Amino acid sequence: MSSVFRDRHIGTDSAAQAEMLRVLGRPSVDDLMGTAVPDAIQVAERESIIPPAATEAEALAELRDLASQNRSARAMIGLGYYDTLTPSVIQRNVLENPSWYTAYTPYQPEISQGRLEALINFQTMVTDLTGLATANASMLDESTAVVEGMLVARRASKSASNVFLVDADALPQTKALLHHRAAAVGVEIVETDFAEIPEAFGAFVQYPGATGRVWDPSEVVAAVQAHKGLVVVAADLLALTLLRSPGSMGADVAVGTTQRFGVPMGFGGPHAGYMAVRAGLERQLPGRLVGVSMDASGAPAYRLSLQTREQHIRREKATSNICTAQVLLAVMASMYAVYHGPDGLKWIAEETTAKASLLRDWLVQAGADVLHDAFFDTLVVRTPGRAEDVIADARRRGYQLWFRDSDSVGVSVDETTTVADLQAVASVFGVDSSKVFVPLRDRNAHLPEALRRTDDYLTHPVFTTHRSETAMMRYLKQLADRDYALDRGMIPLGSCTMKLNAATEMAAVSWPEFARVHPFAPADDVAGYLVMIEQLEAWLAEVTGYDAVSLQPNAGSQGELAGLLAIRGYHHSRGDVHRDVCLIPSSAHGTNAASAVLAGMRVVVVACDEAGNVDVADLRAKVAAHADNLAALMITYPSTHGVYEHDVMDITGAVHDAGGQVYVDGANLNALLGFARFGDLGGDVSHLNLHKTFAIPHGGGGPGVGPVAAKAHLAPFLPSHPMAQRAEHAGGHVFDGGPVSAAPYGSASILPISWAYVRMMGAEGLRQATAAAVLAANYVARRLEGHYPVLYAGEGGLVAHECILDLRPLKEATGITVDDVAKRLIDYGFHAPTMSFPVAGTLMVEPTESEDLAELDRFVEAMIAIRAEADAVAAGEWPANDNPLVNAPHSAASVVTSEWAHPYPRETAVYPVPGIVRTKYWPPVRRIDNAYGDRNLVCACPPIEAFA
Amino acid sequence: MSSVFRDRHIGTDSAAQAEMLRVLGRPSVDDLMGTAVPDAIQVAERESIIPPAATEAEALAELRDLASQNRSARAMIGLGYYDTLTPSVIQRNVLENPSWYTAYTPYQPEISQGRLEALINFQTMVTDLTGLATANASMLDESTAVVEGMLVARRASKSASNVFLVDADALPQTKALLHHRAAAVGVEIVETDFAEIPEAFGAFVQYPGATGRVWDPSEVVAAVQAHKGLVVVAADLLALTLLRSPGSMGADVAVGTTQRFGVPMGFGGPHAGYMAVRAGLERQLPGRLVGVSMDASGAPAYRLSLQTREQHIRREKATSNICTAQVLLAVMASMYAVYHGPDGLKWIAEETTAKASLLRDWLVQAGADVLHDAFFDTLVVRTPGRAEDVIADARRRGYQLWFRDSDSVGVSVDETTTVADLQAVASVFGVDSSKVFVPLRDRNAHLPEALRRTDDYLTHPVFTTHRSETAMMRYLKQLADRDYALDRGMIPLGSCTMKLNAATEMAAVSWPEFARVHPFAPADDVAGYLVMIEQLEAWLAEVTGYDAVSLQPNAGSQGELAGLLAIRGYHHSRGDVHRDVCLIPSSAHGTNAASAVLAGMRVVVVACDEAGNVDVADLRAKVAAHADNLAALMITYPSTHGVYEHDVMDITGAVHDAGGQVYVDGANLNALLGFARFGDLGGDVSHLNLHKTFAIPHGGGGPGVGPVAAKAHLAPFLPSHPMAQRAEHAGGHVFDGGPVSAAPYGSASILPISWAYVRMMGAEGLRQATAAAVLAANYVARRLEGHYPVLYAGEGGLVAHECILDLRPLKEATGITVDDVAKRLIDYGFHAPTMSFPVAGTLMVEPTESEDLAELDRFVEAMIAIRAEADAVAAGEWPANDNPLVNAPHSAASVVTSEWAHPYPRETAVYPVPGIVRTKYWPPVRRIDNAYGDRNLVCACPPIEAFA
Repeated sequence: MSSVFRDRHIGTDSAAQAEMLRVLGRPSVDDLMGTAVPDAIQVAERESIIPPAATEAEALAELRDLASQNRSARAMIGLGYYDTLTPSVIQRNVLENPSWYTAYTPYQPEISQGRLEALINFQTMVTDLTGLATANASMLDESTAVVEGMLVARRASKSASNVFLVDADALPQTKALLHHRAAAVGVEIVETDFAEIPEAFGAFVQYPGATGRVWDPSEVVAAVQAHKGLVVVAADLLALTLLRSPGSMGADVAVGTTQRFGVPMGFGGPHAGYMAVRAGLERQLPGRLVGVSMDASGAPAYRLSLQTREQHIRREKATSNICTAQVLLAVMASMYAVYHGPDGLKWIAEETTAKASLLRDWLVQAGADVLHDAFFDTLVVRTPGRAEDVIADARRRGYQLWFRDSDSVGVSVDETTTVADLQAVASVFGVDSSKVFVPLRDRNAHLPEALRRTDDYLTHPVFTTHRSETAMMRYLKQLADRDYALDRGMIPLGSCTMKLNAATEMAAVSWPEFARVHPFAPADDVAGYLVMIEQLEAWLAEVTGYDAVSLQPNAGSQGELAGLLAIRGYHHSRGDVHRDVCLIPSSAHGTNAASAVLAGMRVVVVACDEAGNVDVADLRAKVAAHADNLAALMITYPSTHGVYEHDVMDITGAVHDAGGQVYVDGANLNALLGFARFGDLGGDVSHLNLHKTFAIPHGGGGPGVGPVAAKAHLAPFLPSHPMAQRAEHAGGHVFDGGPVSAAPYGSASILPISWAYVRMMGAEGLRQATAAAVLAANYVARRLEGHYPVLYAGEGGLVAHECILDLRPLKEATGITVDDVAKRLIDYGFHAPTMSFPVAGTLMVEPTESEDLAELDRFVEAMIAIRAEADAVAAGEWPANDNPLVNAPHSAASVVTSEWAHPYPRETAVYPVPGIVRTKYWPPVRRIDNAYGDRNLVCACPPIEAFA
Repeated sequence: MSSVFRDRHIGTDSAAQAEMLRVLGRPSVDDLMGTAVPDAIQVAERESIIPPAATEAEALAELRDLASQNRSARAMIGLGYYDTLTPSVIQRNVLENPSWYTAYTPYQPEISQGRLEALINFQTMVTDLTGLATANASMLDESTAVVEGMLVARRASKSASNVFLVDADALPQTKALLHHRAAAVGVEIVETDFAEIPEAFGAFVQYPGATGRVWDPSEVVAAVQAHKGLVVVAADLLALTLLRSPGSMGADVAVGTTQRFGVPMGFGGPHAGYMAVRAGLERQLPGRLVGVSMDASGAPAYRLSLQTREQHIRREKATSNICTAQVLLAVMASMYAVYHGPDGLKWIAEETTAKASLLRDWLVQAGADVLHDAFFDTLVVRTPGRAEDVIADARRRGYQLWFRDSDSVGVSVDETTTVADLQAVASVFGVDSSKVFVPLRDRNAHLPEALRRTDDYLTHPVFTTHRSETAMMRYLKQLADRDYALDRGMIPLGSCTMKLNAATEMAAVSWPEFARVHPFAPADDVAGYLVMIEQLEAWLAEVTGYDAVSLQPNAGSQGELAGLLAIRGYHHSRGDVHRDVCLIPSSAHGTNAASAVLAGMRVVVVACDEAGNVDVADLRAKVAAHADNLAALMITYPSTHGVYEHDVMDITGAVHDAGGQVYVDGANLNALLGFARFGDLGGDVSHLNLHKTFAIPHGGGGPGVGPVAAKAHLAPFLPSHPMAQRAEHAGGHVFDGGPVSAAPYGSASILPISWAYVRMMGAEGLRQATAAAVLAANYVARRLEGHYPVLYAGEGGLVAHECILDLRPLKEATGITVDDVAKRLIDYGFHAPTMSFPVAGTLMVEPTESEDLAELDRFVEAMIAIRAEADAVAAGEWPANDNPLVNAPHSAASVVTSEWAHPYPRETAVYPVPGIVRTKYWPPVRRIDNAYGDRNLVCACPPIEAFA
């Protein structure tokens, strides 16, 4: 039936599946899954609370209904979230364009030059505005960025102090996050108004303050640094177009959000946070750092620099668990700066502060009591005893203000605020603005002279050459044209589940009823969101076999951390404060160990056997050795080796017997959904990746959503948030684990994607998708095993949803490396599989359920052809240092040359198979020199002459 | 100020304009315009009724408010318009993707292969479903297609009869259009139930009928053909998936709409109509016909076939004035078929007819009186005396039904209809469906056995290989990648005004409040639309100096026809039935003469002088010669030669003195807006092109909107429509000219684009855009005049908004032709200017106001470099038959070859200037052989083996 979404999401239809089963020698999908998935863990088919699958039209209608339950109001709450105008040209050509949102993290830089350029623009924007040397791209949100800033300070400070000073005028959510996160790593938080500066390894300053105050922190900076402490400043980038930069005031680290640069509030996210550091701290930066290197022809080319993080996060030595960035949102924010340029941003900032000033002057002249005289966009008005009434009155008129406390109300102005809005807000405070005379003044009247910015910023031509919409549209197209995303072909990345991100799923993200919503809006104004969140929580609990779900974590790593903090909270609540050992198999994702460290645990590695399974004997030994202190075991199921381990129940039982908790990493849930449940395997808590299993697009490296799901005994320790709209999430009630994200519901605005996915698939569709994904992986494995050994297999020689191709024998025989094969795949029109994870010298292939048989075959045939090319090298047909593999990828410019010195023809270089001519994707650069880029670190826009 | 839309729309900022003025030696834009535009016609600056420019955010807010005034209801009115589900993947990746919607008509086929493939899919879909030999791509709507079908019949029939038989069960709007259009060309319309078949040159059958009736017209077909008449059948393509095709029943011509193939109703349009003809009538097809030819390498390549129409419409010998097709909508409809495939379409059709059957059975079993027993999707229920009440009751429940007459009500079912809808509708007729037992039956129960389709359709693989959304997304991306649209670079097409189509302007087109609206919905349900239409009419009247505007014509050619019909109506109303001579300058657009012929006029050509101006002496002579019979003069201002003629007031005066009316073609309004008004020049009536001057995108060759504007004395003769919601448009009131489009307000759903454009530019912004466009044209002319003579210029050596570069001297000197230069521009990354219009051997360049100086310079430098290449040929450096110009364009495949026999290097072929490497656009094919394609006419999908 053509209206069944499942048949659009799953790439293989029944005829294709029959053919694939034939190749596998299996009579049916049921047989395949019955063999692959151990009996002990298989769930019986059962009634689901997930409603029967909706059609796309039905799901859209339901989403419109939910949207209509969010009350549209003007949000003037502030606290780090401001309404903003997303330029339509950016909304349409980035946020709503699959060339941007379906892209993967730029680990293959040769086919990611477009988004890498956008990210280097982002870094340049941040360094320019903050006045610091180096910025990353990007952070999850401002509050987590402050936590990461604190950790940078602790690592880099030579102070022996354990104290971190926190500005009393910091955002409340940031304070809550700092308290929660500091406790886990043994840092003492001291809130202060900086009247005195005790010794501390670092200090945090909010600039401007949460109450709007603009002041000069230079003396605080100097005093902290005098004690060998580092200073972290959270600065508003828009304010920085008018105010002196943190760098100019001596700050070591600047952090913040780029939300108000054209990224909708979205009920809390996703947005890109930022971090910039002074010279000397580059190598302390968490997250991703884009740099400039050169390709094989010496042309400038972008890449990720200093890849000591990410897959390479060094387990127990990890300093941060930040992995997912907010790339799509960072791209949007950087393009907002490209589109407006320095003059435009300054104009917006001046408009904003001028409007805030006008409101302040009305209020003050009418006798109101306004807290600060120096401010950028936020006023706090003293309303003794009347704050609740004022807020309620404002709400009746369609305005959301900040309930600071029962005696004061905050108002924040942004680029969308009109004079009519100001008049309405004035009237809420009893002021008839038409009767108040305000003399004409300097637009920046309330910015202290001494703090006004005098230096230039955004001087690179990219910030002034794309001013017209036509120019902007073309720039976005040119960048997108350089990149390879799911709209070109398969991205068979093991462990990353690059499945379809359906247009219907994406639709609601753009709707203003979901987009223009403040994360701290009153519960009654976000009823649609709360219903959706409650349903999605219930559905996710059901499919994973858990009792409670929190959607707050805005990345998998944060969900993981939240889960470990829940285990920590549980043990502490029972007085088991000594339980701090976390067992992690050697095959685990790097973030596992990193999150454990940040949860205050000690990592103990458990060995794996030759088949890639957890070495049960070693596990038992380690459990025994650490029984008294055992906090948790972290496992991934199916394992990162791509097989369903049969001993999993034994393993989880052993840990439980020793008083430990079992953490199941949800990265591979796509192999399990509908067939087995983490909760039934013995898991106590898991994080899921909505951007893997539940159809949220990768966006070129984020956003992600990493819900944490747990059994009932851990539920009280799941994330809470002081401003959460639902009582059970607000702390002190059901969930009481403290926040891990700045917003109560994390990246709420993209939850409609996963909601729509589940709603349109239904329980049966989810199960079929799992089976199709496992079938596809096994089909690829079977067809390739004669050419590349499949490293691990389980029952019946079957893999789960991905397979690891061992390229070490190939290298042995031919000298051709994993890198060569990965880059050569680009010439064939593919994104490479995951390289050298979890085993060096291998490729991990995860085709997902969304690829059709034609594309699977195209991939298989490319891999076979590449194997034949490698064999030709081994046979001496081509020299080892000059053949199509080591020279891959081949850009167009590299083959359109009069001289051609290679021993293979140009056609072989770029058209290795005939069918590719009509759909050829041209990589914009040749292979990039990674070492050169790390040796010569350049992380801002190169001069345009470099490209001449 | 960064929120001023004008600064985003106009490509050149003040600094760039200063530099351009310097090159021109002009002190200011005011001076430039003051010199270029004759004093006599310049309007003084004046108060405008157009409100001050809104920001993009403000315009969006106002549009949302207008949208909210359209009441959302389930439209079950039928009559050729059905609610439909636009697959989200098509909406996002076609309708909302500038790569599709900003493309131009595929006159440069080498860089239009993507949309040409989509259109050949369209033609294949139509020929398969109609069972006829050849289909075009595409028609404006079903009703105009019927008129064109009538004209085909008249041309092709050997009957001497002047009678055209019209099915009494035809759609009412089609009947109205036939009566109006037939009168102008002297055809006698006879409505009939076909009980008898008198002699006629043709007959028109609606299949199924407007009342839903399904019957076998085979005998009617045979009887008409026995009298040498041709039979035109309007057939519902969805019904044809289940019913015997018109071709199988002997029809000569099939026409219809493809709206219900995923194109929203949009309050009437735009949608693609279709026409298919039996073998032998190919060369009678109006509009555009895509065919397969081959490129210089012998590879298959698509192109427009038989270009005897279009710019080549042969003036007074014209047989049709169809020019704009509805390409964007034809692409959407064809992709709907590609996505659903034959099985999916059939399933949708069966669902539809099964639901209609269920409703019918409920009603009949409960005793209701249903008109027909054989139907597809539409029921007419007899409700003697109660029809108004039934309709009103339905409306209260949220359903719009068809008020057929006071005694009967129509209900049409479509793919969006749910069982709940059927139950609600049944209850409107007093039937409680839960109490009626309907036995389970064949889903096609009400389709007569003898009429059920048995042959296959959509058997080409393209209709079965893109079934998953992933595959569909990639197919759309691959096609878009082959094409050059405004998102890649300038399309400097003279007379076509390829300006920015801003994303904000496009936003509202996708909103369901504008999209899911039936054209015959009650006025109260479309209040937002009516307000917007009224405002836009007033604004357009204001800027053109006219008193009345009709937005009904859905293409420029139709606006032109409507204007001429208004002149005809005016003369007739005064008894001047003999006034039928239409004077047209030799430089006019081909459609001018074609429309005059279709308005029943005789064309008399007026000479032009050497400067390109109307030869006033010849004009006076022609006026004198035809004074008694003079109906009209048609002129274009500024002329198609791109200059402001100074004698225009003398010319219009002379025509008026002789009792004629002046028709001013609005094609070049972009050179005038804000500086002069057609009404003030002496114009009595004009058509405008909203897709030229008012920012509606060209969509790859449509949609267009061609409003007609007139002085008060012609207003009564402007288009009316029997179903128009506003009384003044409904005939018998203010406007009474009869319809020229199927829907009362034509392509209503794209009017928000032009509304937003005017709303965001304001009067001053429109004026500045004009000046910027004229400045850009003069800048290009000045910089190129040393390399290519500028053919015509006006006062001060200035051109208007476009310039004609004379390439005849170049050809003389070097042998290099206009074609060679145009194709070579592709290698430089440009779409060619208009070729050989209005003067053979020239290029007409219109940069528009939206291009920035960098892009203008890039174009100028490309043209200069090409001139140097031509000189090199002349100098013997390269042979005349083997050089980069005659071999252009160069595809990637053509340069990635081991063998290279050309006397210039590969780099010169594809990277003629250094900057192009990073942004290279690769044409997918080499130069296409036009003659081969016309000799070997293939107008359906070629077998996939052809591309091997």
